[in-house]
Amino acid sequence: MRLALAQLNPTVGDIAGNEAKVREHLARAREADAQIVLFPELAITGYPPEDLLLKEHFLADARAAVERIAADAQGIVAVVGFPERADDAYNAAAVCADGAVQAIYRKVNLPNYGVFDELRYFQRGPGGAIVEVDGVKVGLTVCEDIWVPGPPLTDEALAGARLVLNISASPYQAGKGRLREQMIAQRARDSLAVVAFCALVGGQDELVFDGHSFVVDHERDVIARSPQFAEDLLICDVDVAAAGAARLRDTRARPAAREVAPEVAQLGSFTTAGASDAAAPGGSVADLLDEDAEVYAALVLGTRDYVTKSGFEHVVLGLSGGIDSTLVALIAVDALGPERVTCVTMPSPYSSQGTRDDAKVLAQNLGVELLELPIGEPMQGYDELLGEVFAGREPDITEENLQARIRGNLLMALSNKFGWLVLTTGNKSEMSVGYSTLYGDSAGGFAVIKDCPKLLVYRLVRERARRDPQSPVPDSIITRAPSAELRPDQRDEDSLPPYEVLDAILQGYVEEDLGREQLIARGLPAEDVDRVIRLVDISEYKRRQNPPGIKVTSKAFGRDRRVPIVNRYGG
Amino acid sequence: MRLALAQLNPTVGDIAGNEAKVREHLARAREADAQIVLFPELAITGYPPEDLLLKEHFLADARAAVERIAADAQGIVAVVGFPERADDAYNAAAVCADGAVQAIYRKVNLPNYGVFDELRYFQRGPGGAIVEVDGVKVGLTVCEDIWVPGPPLTDEALAGARLVLNISASPYQAGKGRLREQMIAQRARDSLAVVAFCALVGGQDELVFDGHSFVVDHERDVIARSPQFAEDLLICDVDVAAAGAARLRDTRARPAAREVAPEVAQLGSFTTAGASDAAAPGGSVADLLDEDAEVYAALVLGTRDYVTKSGFEHVVLGLSGGIDSTLVALIAVDALGPERVTCVTMPSPYSSQGTRDDAKVLAQNLGVELLELPIGEPMQGYDELLGEVFAGREPDITEENLQARIRGNLLMALSNKFGWLVLTTGNKSEMSVGYSTLYGDSAGGFAVIKDCPKLLVYRLVRERARRDPQSPVPDSIITRAPSAELRPDQRDEDSLPPYEVLDAILQGYVEEDLGREQLIARGLPAEDVDRVIRLVDISEYKRRQNPPGIKVTSKAFGRDRRVPIVNRYGG
Repeated sequence: MRLALAQLNPTVGDIAGNEAKVREHLARAREADAQIVLFPELAITGYPPEDLLLKEHFLADARAAVERIAADAQGIVAVVGFPERADDAYNAAAVCADGAVQAIYRKVNLPNYGVFDELRYFQRGPGGAIVEVDGVKVGLTVCEDIWVPGPPLTDEALAGARLVLNISASPYQAGKGRLREQMIAQRARDSLAVVAFCALVGGQDELVFDGHSFVVDHERDVIARSPQFAEDLLICDVDVAAAGAARLRDTRARPAAREVAPEVAQLGSFTTAGASDAAAPGGSVADLLDEDAEVYAALVLGTRDYVTKSGFEHVVLGLSGGIDSTLVALIAVDALGPERVTCVTMPSPYSSQGTRDDAKVLAQNLGVELLELPIGEPMQGYDELLGEVFAGREPDITEENLQARIRGNLLMALSNKFGWLVLTTGNKSEMSVGYSTLYGDSAGGFAVIKDCPKLLVYRLVRERARRDPQSPVPDSIITRAPSAELRPDQRDEDSLPPYEVLDAILQGYVEEDLGREQLIARGLPAEDVDRVIRLVDISEYKRRQNPPGIKVTSKAFGRDRRVPIVNRYGG
Repeated sequence: MRLALAQLNPTVGDIAGNEAKVREHLARAREADAQIVLFPELAITGYPPEDLLLKEHFLADARAAVERIAADAQGIVAVVGFPERADDAYNAAAVCADGAVQAIYRKVNLPNYGVFDELRYFQRGPGGAIVEVDGVKVGLTVCEDIWVPGPPLTDEALAGARLVLNISASPYQAGKGRLREQMIAQRARDSLAVVAFCALVGGQDELVFDGHSFVVDHERDVIARSPQFAEDLLICDVDVAAAGAARLRDTRARPAAREVAPEVAQLGSFTTAGASDAAAPGGSVADLLDEDAEVYAALVLGTRDYVTKSGFEHVVLGLSGGIDSTLVALIAVDALGPERVTCVTMPSPYSSQGTRDDAKVLAQNLGVELLELPIGEPMQGYDELLGEVFAGREPDITEENLQARIRGNLLMALSNKFGWLVLTTGNKSEMSVGYSTLYGDSAGGFAVIKDCPKLLVYRLVRERARRDPQSPVPDSIITRAPSAELRPDQRDEDSLPPYEVLDAILQGYVEEDLGREQLIARGLPAEDVDRVIRLVDISEYKRRQNPPGIKVTSKAFGRDRRVPIVNRYGG
């Protein structure tokens, strides 16, 4: 049996554009003699459409697109993810064959944790369902259905499905793709079924979908795999007979099958014009990226998609010569090309010659435009204007923040005048403890590395340098001690614990929801733990006003970590 | 039977403070000879605690507080809302009597729409439950349980409960209190039970809880009511015998009772030292505020609580002489007193004499400090710095935004230097269509009127003036045509439809999720509809970076309306 897995990058809300993408890949799958072609979860609307799902006309438009796609499904069975409006709303997979929507499977397990809010929108489906394609029983599942061990997948296998399809939109976090592949491989082995996992790819606001579609046989061997972070049409031949034969030997499931099988819906039987001659099972198998390369690729795709899907042609960022803005410049150039990136250096009297020179060298090596706008005079202008009101008070964080805000104003003025999107350069460690200026360095449209802890920032710059024999990054950027350069001889470690300690505390406090005692029990210094917890808590108001950025860790700020601003818990 | 309803204003996360509040009111209820005292939903943690609920130690701390409270429950039954950690996590009501937690009821209906995310945190309870207090069967429910017609409330009544308790944290929106009271009154009539509704009060981030606790008898008469927007201990005697007697006459429920009654958990039987001598039923009945006065009171409470619960002593805001900043100044003074409010006028060459004078008169009448910081010079400074980069281009929105951003910088500098919270003054109509400057007039800590459409802003200022024979508001503020004053002779209606049209479109598009065709069918001009839809959609990125503010409509931006930023749907 020949499958096609269309790993598509739809745009949320662009129903016409997504429909065109689906139809194009449907045609290509038919040309490849596929019998079944899969499209990702909610491929018609993009994922997650959020409260667009509360509009009746949006759901009607999505349905109309599915009907038009179904008209193309001749001689092939297409399984297409869309939001179904019926007695209630469902996260559904349309089974299109013989020119019409023949059946609809409704997702059973609706995730409502982490970044997910599916119980806000959807009713649960009633349970497992099977269609017959060219005489083969095929089970249907949508995303979360396969993450929960048990039904509907197990029910469908017990009811005779030799092949189980899963269409997904599974948001990226570092390392998740490998774990997902291992988990689904185990499901295939447990149920003695071939599993085809067809995933969405692309960036949507703070989420990146990594693609990484694959087919795994009943012995848990991955026999075909799409590349990560790119659109793909994966063609794979599968041997469902072998899965069936294995069940004659391994009869552990027989007692359960008798009870469950009658509960599974039989949604119809279809014949196709696809390849039925016995081809060797398998398809192309893409390699997986290494750990840091994978994160870097996610950032590049997330940035490219945010910029282009928002309709921007060009981005601008402040280049200080520090490690954070270096990483963002690298990502921007890799995502968009150097001709679509403008960097701005905005030196103050506290900017060192070293960072100023590094910024210039980097910009030159990257081939991007570099503007220079020194901020000394505006700094003085504010000092004079506020002189009377501030009389008798020492300079403090106020004046530091004003420098950052002048820079923010200048970047936004360039954005307004030329229609450029401002990329901000703050990392997760800073954002966690509020070591940034609201409306200053955090001002902009997209915060590329906001979910990258500082130590990861270093790893990613090194990773990018390693891959490129002509690395554009001067060594001094990597080796210099981090500084905000907002007062003379300032260094991050004057205000914060060393990043090794800070990042370890943040990992436990933010990503793992641990408390003070548990963090200290991990060997982290009590004084640092107390300070960091307090800083994280009181900085929530700042984070709420920061631009969106790409989730790469297990818990990003924002929809992933929802904490009150007014919060006296303290830990 | 004598009830006490403790309408408390807890602070999220302040378990020790909330515990103290509960114990104080428990003692007062005992002194008043109450047999049962009610505390709101999640009174121990405040509502909503959001992802604090994902911390094991937070749940353990909440439990410990409930145990200490229970030790005080001697001669009285206390029902206290808290998050229970057991085999799973539950939104629960602890029944405390004889010095210990004797029983726990678990909320059955978990809201997961609008501003609610309870399925993110909690498992559903198994169903209705009853306790016996001094021989009277009393049903238990938590908030949403009473909004869904049917179980658990109906089950409890069918199983013999003459009195049903509901502890709630029900967020305010305009007019909701009246509807809630009518709905609950109907539940009481339908089930022939007395219902005691004990609600949380106070502001938490973007939500205000309006209090408005009450007791309604089985004939749907409200026999006691707490004031809105203030803490209260409501004492009410109820006649449960009358509810019981009514069931001998009205026997419609008998067939259902036989089936359901055995399913309802019987959680124990307690005797109290409270008043058992027959008092006339009822308690004090507070009047309800009129429509606009109610919204105004919500804004005052929401502002006061955000400021004080965040630990601020003082607020600052830009006073332009326009209607929006006038309303915010009024609210700030009513919330905090004039000595805790500083206003700043920041005139530019485009500021009219009229607005400048009005700002001064208003500040004087309110008795607040007024600072003047003219922005002409910084404007010139930016123009010079950017002159080269902008060479050959006409002035446009860039220069307008720079003015607003200079003002934002100045307010933030005052905030940084003196530790004041900046109140922003944008209204919902502006925020909807992006008629504001990011990091400019939207810069600040709390956006008091962000959910108030412009027409409501006018109504609220008039309402405040009406109540006050010495109204501090010059008439010209109310009668002048709205303008941002960022270029010569600018008026809002140059860029936007008249507010009557704009607000009507926004009501349909934002609050009701209507599409283009439906709005036009309402008689709204097609051209305006298209333009406003587009502006609302492309302004989502701005709103994401705006400060929190108080929800007063049926759908506020933020956790209430969750839409993608990248969104090509267009309607």
